[in-house]
Amino acid sequence: MLRARGTGRRPVMLAIAGDSAAGKTTLTRGLVQCLGADRMTAVCVDDYHRYDRAERKGKPFTALHPDCNHIDIMEQHLQLLSMGEPILKPVYDHATGELVRPELVEPRDFVIVEGLLPLHTRLARACFDITVYLDPPEILRHAWKIRRDCEKRGYTPDQVRAELARREAESAAYIRPQRRSADIVVRFAPVAGRTDPPDTPLSAELLLRPTIDHPELGPVIEQAASGGTAMHLRLHRDTDGRPVDALHVHGYVSPDESQVVKKALWERLGARAGHLEQDVLGRFGEAGTSDPLAITQLLLLYHLLDADQRQAA
Amino acid sequence: MLRARGTGRRPVMLAIAGDSAAGKTTLTRGLVQCLGADRMTAVCVDDYHRYDRAERKGKPFTALHPDCNHIDIMEQHLQLLSMGEPILKPVYDHATGELVRPELVEPRDFVIVEGLLPLHTRLARACFDITVYLDPPEILRHAWKIRRDCEKRGYTPDQVRAELARREAESAAYIRPQRRSADIVVRFAPVAGRTDPPDTPLSAELLLRPTIDHPELGPVIEQAASGGTAMHLRLHRDTDGRPVDALHVHGYVSPDESQVVKKALWERLGARAGHLEQDVLGRFGEAGTSDPLAITQLLLLYHLLDADQRQAA
Repeated sequence: MLRARGTGRRPVMLAIAGDSAAGKTTLTRGLVQCLGADRMTAVCVDDYHRYDRAERKGKPFTALHPDCNHIDIMEQHLQLLSMGEPILKPVYDHATGELVRPELVEPRDFVIVEGLLPLHTRLARACFDITVYLDPPEILRHAWKIRRDCEKRGYTPDQVRAELARREAESAAYIRPQRRSADIVVRFAPVAGRTDPPDTPLSAELLLRPTIDHPELGPVIEQAASGGTAMHLRLHRDTDGRPVDALHVHGYVSPDESQVVKKALWERLGARAGHLEQDVLGRFGEAGTSDPLAITQLLLLYHLLDADQRQAA
Repeated sequence: MLRARGTGRRPVMLAIAGDSAAGKTTLTRGLVQCLGADRMTAVCVDDYHRYDRAERKGKPFTALHPDCNHIDIMEQHLQLLSMGEPILKPVYDHATGELVRPELVEPRDFVIVEGLLPLHTRLARACFDITVYLDPPEILRHAWKIRRDCEKRGYTPDQVRAELARREAESAAYIRPQRRSADIVVRFAPVAGRTDPPDTPLSAELLLRPTIDHPELGPVIEQAASGGTAMHLRLHRDTDGRPVDALHVHGYVSPDESQVVKKALWERLGARAGHLEQDVLGRFGEAGTSDPLAITQLLLLYHLLDADQRQAA
């Protein structure tokens, strides 16, 4: 279902930014499965490399550096997608490190753009209705990256660690500053000081910036938590002093508690959510499920459908 | 010298359309050499194939068919170039028949776009300041294509003839109709009924449509030809009945005669032409030179510099 050109309706654009192996694909997958691939286009913007792997060898920067990427073309393509236009997107083959045949991407009703630098420039940011930054603790992200790159991309753990060290300065300079530009900062992490059973999912801490209109969640959470500590919404100052709401959904939340919040969010989605697949939310890895992840995805679904409705109005 | 963004000045866009081996590259090369590669970007739009050679095998059309090409992306890229924006252009490798790594193209002051279908759609045509269609006699074009494809692309003459036959219906349906949309139709051909020495260059017949403002050439040509027949400008009805000026420069034109016209055209270029390389015009093949070709290129240079001056005004 392509959004017809000339109707004046544009796709709803969601950015999911974050460092390598921060969990972008996991978060995206549930959203695409829930809304349906016929209504949603997922685009990874890590393919705009100016140099292939062999050419990068002699360069004084890693693939994270903006100078190593066609940032102006990425901006152009984001603008085109946001206007409902197709793009011929470059493709980088992670297995071979080569730039290969580009692919046609046609925006559907919803476009999720995930990658390392989608929020790097002002013009790129201006293309999005909703912006998310994934911010796991570095120690966790490193473990995820080592596991993924060894299992799926054929590296050894030492090679991945060396690459992480090489990238650290550029992560700090270019990736992490995007956190500041996100409407929602998502941090999956274990809760400090607790010794939950080993299969307890990670907790989610969601910073909800007042840059977009979030659903009113306070009363729901108060009711669901009924004095417990597994979920709470707190007014908070971010590390830079700016006010935010911080929504915590702990991994040890009981199914009953999380069910109250999920139900309340589904109700807010209303009739628009009638045909959505609910049980694809919260899945990770081969067979894991996580209520904190499901609630995070539900909140993003709320924003996607809300922006879509405002487009239609 | 990239045309700076935000200055409001756009590149001057020239289209050179024509069938395979019609002489597009020869015409283009002299213009690029004369203006200088630092001021001019040449783009071939035959790389927007939707399918590679292997994929086309099962399809009911040849590479000429619009459905076989990303026409909407070509239009988009022409629009971007005409606004001074860079593009990441797809690249088709003629040797292997594969679609490969795209290349960054940044528009300079002048952009020449040559190819099979640059004038196929209204939106594409609207991107150009000057449009040219190359229209050699088919018998000549076939001979050129057989020579080129055998020498440079490793085919046998029979293979090229079979391909020409396969393409004929689509040439008639999609390539040749673009002739109608050109401001200038260029036909290089021998003069019928004459037996000039074998190294006499081809004559040029230029149809000059009143869709752009051509330089006033009548008096110059009258003076140069001084009653001869080697050059003339005649009011003419095109095959579709529309009025055009037809400028003939015959291959047997004497150096003195053509010099008068060339000089007059250089004078019309004025101070703008001060730094241009004159003797690169009219070259073809390994070592050939042709006054009809040189005069054709000079006329196009006139239009390029004229459009550039109007941009600046």
